[in-house]
Amino acid sequence: MESGADRYSEISLDAVRKAAEIVYRSIAPTPLRDYPLLNAYAGMRLLLKHENHLPTGAFKIRGGLNFMHHFAESRTHNGVITATRGNHGQSVALAATSYGVPSTIVVPYGNNPEKNDAMRAFGARMVEHGRDFDEAREEVERLAREENLRYIHSANEPHLINGVGTYALEIAESMKSRGERIDAVFVPIGLGSGISGVITVMRELAPDAKIYGVQAAGAPSIFLSWREGRIVTTPEAQTFADGVATRVPSEFTLDIIRRGVEEIVLVDDEEIAATIRLLWRTTHNMVEGAGAAAATAALKLKERLAGKNVVAVMSGGNLDTATLSRIFQENGSK
Amino acid sequence: MESGADRYSEISLDAVRKAAEIVYRSIAPTPLRDYPLLNAYAGMRLLLKHENHLPTGAFKIRGGLNFMHHFAESRTHNGVITATRGNHGQSVALAATSYGVPSTIVVPYGNNPEKNDAMRAFGARMVEHGRDFDEAREEVERLAREENLRYIHSANEPHLINGVGTYALEIAESMKSRGERIDAVFVPIGLGSGISGVITVMRELAPDAKIYGVQAAGAPSIFLSWREGRIVTTPEAQTFADGVATRVPSEFTLDIIRRGVEEIVLVDDEEIAATIRLLWRTTHNMVEGAGAAAATAALKLKERLAGKNVVAVMSGGNLDTATLSRIFQENGSK
Repeated sequence: MESGADRYSEISLDAVRKAAEIVYRSIAPTPLRDYPLLNAYAGMRLLLKHENHLPTGAFKIRGGLNFMHHFAESRTHNGVITATRGNHGQSVALAATSYGVPSTIVVPYGNNPEKNDAMRAFGARMVEHGRDFDEAREEVERLAREENLRYIHSANEPHLINGVGTYALEIAESMKSRGERIDAVFVPIGLGSGISGVITVMRELAPDAKIYGVQAAGAPSIFLSWREGRIVTTPEAQTFADGVATRVPSEFTLDIIRRGVEEIVLVDDEEIAATIRLLWRTTHNMVEGAGAAAATAALKLKERLAGKNVVAVMSGGNLDTATLSRIFQENGSK
Repeated sequence: MESGADRYSEISLDAVRKAAEIVYRSIAPTPLRDYPLLNAYAGMRLLLKHENHLPTGAFKIRGGLNFMHHFAESRTHNGVITATRGNHGQSVALAATSYGVPSTIVVPYGNNPEKNDAMRAFGARMVEHGRDFDEAREEVERLAREENLRYIHSANEPHLINGVGTYALEIAESMKSRGERIDAVFVPIGLGSGISGVITVMRELAPDAKIYGVQAAGAPSIFLSWREGRIVTTPEAQTFADGVATRVPSEFTLDIIRRGVEEIVLVDDEEIAATIRLLWRTTHNMVEGAGAAAATAALKLKERLAGKNVVAVMSGGNLDTATLSRIFQENGSK
């Protein structure tokens, strides 16, 4: 295990630029777009970063590809393993498969079958174990030892953060090429790899841009940790937005977040669901809960942001069918 | 009015390549992707052309941009006008606005308000007139004369066909760069601009690829016209897939279709809705009825296509909220 200080020094704009070279071998940059109907509604220029257009439907593939490139070069283990409920697992599975690395994903019993199917289809060995994420994690540790597999934490990995930072690089470069200033960037926080990449890039390329983290009101562990200046865990994570349903913050990313964030905004499930419907109606992009959280928070601060250039990261689009159905059943005609 | 023969000669691979230069000033190429889960279900390699990722959510913007470039150069009228229920209008509105050309869109009363809002937001003057498309068309003719506006038919325009042909060029070049053969291409037919572009390009670049047109069973005018060798109109167009809800074929494109198509396949609304749900579950792309029609037809011929490389054009993603809600309410958990 490397020391904390060393690992922070591995995260930099330069490393993000190097990651970009690797990531673009497999994927294309995603669009950054605003939509007249949405702008009018929001009273600001609300630019959406379309990570939902990626082949796995979520930003994490950028980190997975960068990680796997380095792993495949040094190959210290027989394969990789992780525990996940969704997007991180799809990213690991697809990236591993494309580098010829065997991958194992451990999910708790009762994990969403659509997400399991997707990870299996991208080439992962799926293992179901335990009643919740923490029990699945124990099985990961056991299997990792037994089979000499490299455990990939979903956030505490400089290669992941540098990889996902490529979307922030695209935002900064795209706005620069249009000659436009970025006033604010809203980023959903799960374990913080995405926002750590954003902070790393914007600090250098758009230092005046204010960075807002977004968490679900029912899963506020990073909000609480940020506010109280110490690690706060919550007994439960109550939100349908599984990409931000974190109970236990990562100390590694929390430190980056603390130093880089303007504020952490909480949004509740009803607000997120309303934004999913709004984004569908005004942009015809369907996103998962975490993917709508950033725009939800921006809309919540609309008075403060009136007339500004605001970027909201649509981190992913992997909404399971039952949840989609529920969101559009209750308020289908709104 | 130019003669028919002249106008056909304006449609060519060369003209599509020239259109590509114009179109790429405003938009980026769209992905052509297959998805392991969908391939497994389909028993073929089913590659989706993601026209739903375009800024207007539909392929037509390619034609609109190419048309408007040429119109803005020669500027023979005070502006442009068209009648539409949706995607063609968004294309005309956005393309006109980006070339500084005033646009007018006439829709019948009761047209979907979400589609009207989108066209208005892209900068068009919206006029509501008449009980149906044909009555709206009469108003278009009156306004065009009165205000010296250029009427843009949604299919009988070589610049539109060359413009939308750029997606076919992307398909052919992407498959060629992967060293892969195209066995079949499925294309939804509204008035036939899309499939005319596909035929024009594939004839030169992938002459062995079989091209299948797709219509809704409740709106089979082009299927009937193709089968009977004469123009057949239908009294109604009964399908929720408004992008293919055509009652009266265009003679101009029908002639191209007749010479280039392997077969026209009919799919019913229930099958299309099931495909929308399937595509959501397996790819997390949400498409409108016409956008799912091509994949629906490919799945219908799955025995014939087993193991082949099949492209289905996802022509658009502009499903209105009420229809989306209905499709996922009835069978949300399937």
